[in-house]
Amino acid sequence: MSKGKFITFEGPEGAGKTTVIAEIYKRMQKEGLEGILTREPGGIRISEKIRAIILDNDHQEMDGRTEALLYASARRQHLVERIIPAIHEGKIVLCDRFIDSSLAYQGYARGLGMDDVMSINAFAIGDTMPDLTIFFDISPEEGLQRIAQSGVREQNRLDNEALQFHQKVYKGYKVLLEKYPNRIISTDATLPLSEVTENVWKIISSQLISQDNS
Amino acid sequence: MSKGKFITFEGPEGAGKTTVIAEIYKRMQKEGLEGILTREPGGIRISEKIRAIILDNDHQEMDGRTEALLYASARRQHLVERIIPAIHEGKIVLCDRFIDSSLAYQGYARGLGMDDVMSINAFAIGDTMPDLTIFFDISPEEGLQRIAQSGVREQNRLDNEALQFHQKVYKGYKVLLEKYPNRIISTDATLPLSEVTENVWKIISSQLISQDNS
Repeated sequence: MSKGKFITFEGPEGAGKTTVIAEIYKRMQKEGLEGILTREPGGIRISEKIRAIILDNDHQEMDGRTEALLYASARRQHLVERIIPAIHEGKIVLCDRFIDSSLAYQGYARGLGMDDVMSINAFAIGDTMPDLTIFFDISPEEGLQRIAQSGVREQNRLDNEALQFHQKVYKGYKVLLEKYPNRIISTDATLPLSEVTENVWKIISSQLISQDNS
Repeated sequence: MSKGKFITFEGPEGAGKTTVIAEIYKRMQKEGLEGILTREPGGIRISEKIRAIILDNDHQEMDGRTEALLYASARRQHLVERIIPAIHEGKIVLCDRFIDSSLAYQGYARGLGMDDVMSINAFAIGDTMPDLTIFFDISPEEGLQRIAQSGVREQNRLDNEALQFHQKVYKGYKVLLEKYPNRIISTDATLPLSEVTENVWKIISSQLISQDNS
């Protein structure tokens, strides 16, 4: 049985992740590489129901730890139903946001503590940590400006957070880059999206080759 | 500011906990002791919504770790909105099931591991561990027989579990009794409920007095 690869994509809001990942996925297919593209809750019905509780604008009383546990539970179910089966089938899994979002958003920016948020996510993830994580490096100011200009995304409870919060998220990611230098690789996300795509593709192909040889 | 007491009640299904706790609560009021009686999700709307996802008979695909994380998240919100404020007001909080149910049911009986389930619950609970836990000691056979005879409870996904599962839960509680001998006190729940009530009242009053003097 061949074992697939698990690649996650992280970064501030408006970093262009979703667009770039779609391009990477197309390119994978063109190269004949079997893979899936997913993003929590990903249509997994239990995870969707959990996510609906988290994002309900009406739930202003939600405690930060409740939220972190809910994210971890939605993550677990999506992992079990979508990611693990694909890895076992030898596919390359591209996942838009994963554990590092929880560590940066809840652990660092909301002040719950990265180690504590790691402990509940370690429970959720078990031994299925990402093989590779691409960090889209762009300042929160520039990222939020992009979102404002595009005007395509629906507002939810998280988008209403102040810029200060997003600056903390960005710092949180920087802490993670130092903490996991082998797993997380940074890419300049201020470049035109076609160049970002090219750079991300290079990282992924070199990593897949180097890991196959190891 | 006075600090209240946090007392939890644990045991197999059909142990008579709910009846006895209601009696204890009445007795507290008669003695002029301020307190509250609660049970997760306790009408806390976020916790109720989470619990509805857990108990939905349709969710047969739910992973054990997803379930444990959902219980922990519902616990956190109920703790923050109901239990912690009451303790800060100096009240005695009586809670029907709490962390030990997760440790016995998910950790031991479902085989997720007590230490792992403890880690996510430690995150949920923070520094609000129970001051005292009463364990209603009755064999699962006798407990389930009582439920069958009473016929009052609605069937849900958990009630459909086999006797074997409930035997594991019981063993899990026995492990917890050995692990937390200072916090958990066992009471014979095979006695008539009036006697169980009397014995539980004695434990609580002696513990409240001894803790006040310490």
